[in-house]
Amino acid sequence: MDISNELAIGIDIGGTNTKYGVVNHRGQILEKGEIATEDYPEIGSFINALHTKLDPLISSLKKENVQGIGIGAPNGNYYTGTIEYAPNLKWKGIIPLAKLISEKFELPAALTNDANAAAVGEMTYGAARGMKDFIMITLGTGVGSGIVANGQLILGHDGFAGELGHTIIIPGGRIHEGTGMRGSLEAYASATGVTKTAVELLEKNSGKESLLKKYSGKINSKIVYECAMKNDKLAKKVYEYTGKILGQALANFIMFSSPEAIILFGGLTRAGDMIMNPTREHMEKNLLPIFQNKVKLVFSELVESDAAILGASALVWEMRSE
Amino acid sequence: MDISNELAIGIDIGGTNTKYGVVNHRGQILEKGEIATEDYPEIGSFINALHTKLDPLISSLKKENVQGIGIGAPNGNYYTGTIEYAPNLKWKGIIPLAKLISEKFELPAALTNDANAAAVGEMTYGAARGMKDFIMITLGTGVGSGIVANGQLILGHDGFAGELGHTIIIPGGRIHEGTGMRGSLEAYASATGVTKTAVELLEKNSGKESLLKKYSGKINSKIVYECAMKNDKLAKKVYEYTGKILGQALANFIMFSSPEAIILFGGLTRAGDMIMNPTREHMEKNLLPIFQNKVKLVFSELVESDAAILGASALVWEMRSE
Repeated sequence: MDISNELAIGIDIGGTNTKYGVVNHRGQILEKGEIATEDYPEIGSFINALHTKLDPLISSLKKENVQGIGIGAPNGNYYTGTIEYAPNLKWKGIIPLAKLISEKFELPAALTNDANAAAVGEMTYGAARGMKDFIMITLGTGVGSGIVANGQLILGHDGFAGELGHTIIIPGGRIHEGTGMRGSLEAYASATGVTKTAVELLEKNSGKESLLKKYSGKINSKIVYECAMKNDKLAKKVYEYTGKILGQALANFIMFSSPEAIILFGGLTRAGDMIMNPTREHMEKNLLPIFQNKVKLVFSELVESDAAILGASALVWEMRSE
Repeated sequence: MDISNELAIGIDIGGTNTKYGVVNHRGQILEKGEIATEDYPEIGSFINALHTKLDPLISSLKKENVQGIGIGAPNGNYYTGTIEYAPNLKWKGIIPLAKLISEKFELPAALTNDANAAAVGEMTYGAARGMKDFIMITLGTGVGSGIVANGQLILGHDGFAGELGHTIIIPGGRIHEGTGMRGSLEAYASATGVTKTAVELLEKNSGKESLLKKYSGKINSKIVYECAMKNDKLAKKVYEYTGKILGQALANFIMFSSPEAIILFGGLTRAGDMIMNPTREHMEKNLLPIFQNKVKLVFSELVESDAAILGASALVWEMRSE
């Protein structure tokens, strides 16, 4: 069969929405759409809804061209094909998602967590093309990570490797509401973390002027971003502090797997140099000399809304090469 | 050729001594010996001395049976075959060691750092047999590490991966004399770190009785061990504190690569349960629930004096399978 006709379906399951797309080998999304994850508290009805949307697309593109379905989902486990106890999804316990989808669609299906899917997408179509060793850090509502070494995803013995957002950067530091742990990276370098830092800095600097003041009680990461873009000193300090913690964490990650690059992805990266500069500074400062000025720290090259679909679809090509 | 006749030479280069051995596929050391590394400030004379010792052994065992030479050395780089700026060796700069040895002995040679060699030894002959994902932590004068994921050593894009001893566990913490960095694991969980902790605890507890007091000014890790074995409270506290920091660090490492086991090796492990119990407690305490009570934390199964030779020799079998 002509490889250029081959297609893969990518599905990105989030707490709010599920996005899907049909992707070719060049990473072009030929068709896409979405359904509201929240509308389907029962997994069977969710899969039926997906099938109703995707089946006509698959038929119109000729089913024999579709090689399989790749899925990225919170707490998705590649080895078992299950979603296990995902806090942001309504389906509780252990869901055998890859099996359910494979049976319904009569196509091979592979599942991994959303950050691993993003890493595969970046390796196949984005900033990590040609790299064998890199780390993908997703900075969104939470902090996720996908680690590639020797050209392979690091999944660990149980499929749960790469929870870098939960590593402790400041022992005894800020509490993480979701896990109850103190000082984890996610408590600082996520949207929630940025909001908390802004509130803390406002309290400490009550005598100083800041645009943030008029949002007292309803500050969120979007407001911090907007104020920083208006050159508000305190809002910019929020990014400096966030970058400092993130940079310290990245230095530790580098001394673990010595990647060629670290790729930052997600909402926080919109802050551009405001977050990149302090992150790079504190990353370099905390590295042994043999690691300094070697690791590329870059933003993702993929459009955020497409990246998760591309990453999930790329799992299908990975499946084939095993 | 009958594989059971195949032999590999393992060489372990340390700052003080260099040990070597001839090893068969079952991990038996058929012949071994050592020379004083310090006696050869010039690399050429070092290699000549090794050759003088090993050549008669190789001849007596039939040279055609010897498949190659594996070498473990501080700052040894697998990709380049060079030792680069090793602080504890007299040979300065970049030494193309694998090439020099291969030319002199007319045999293939592979080099890696000592902790990676120990990890390969453990995977081939020790506690990690059959494992595809584990982390080896060497607790000696310094803290080294060898990381295996997907059945392969994680070397990183430049060959320097696995410097876990230099990751920062306590930002702004104790200074590491060698690197100038603050709060790195090695500043606490090494022989030097144990000594420092003992001195600090003695100062803080000057009113309390302790066997350590009579060694004031000349405390070292051996004295701490001996006092702890005599049930000295303060000496035992030194291990509790060391285990606490080590356990915190291990939790972070687990959330990176989700290994099946962590294997502890080296001088500090002689303290047995005194170090193991607090390490395990604080490791579990700092893990996300999905990682808890899953990771085997064990001591190496290899005799310390043989492990480095076995690990280095096992590089030869690895070379063949590439």
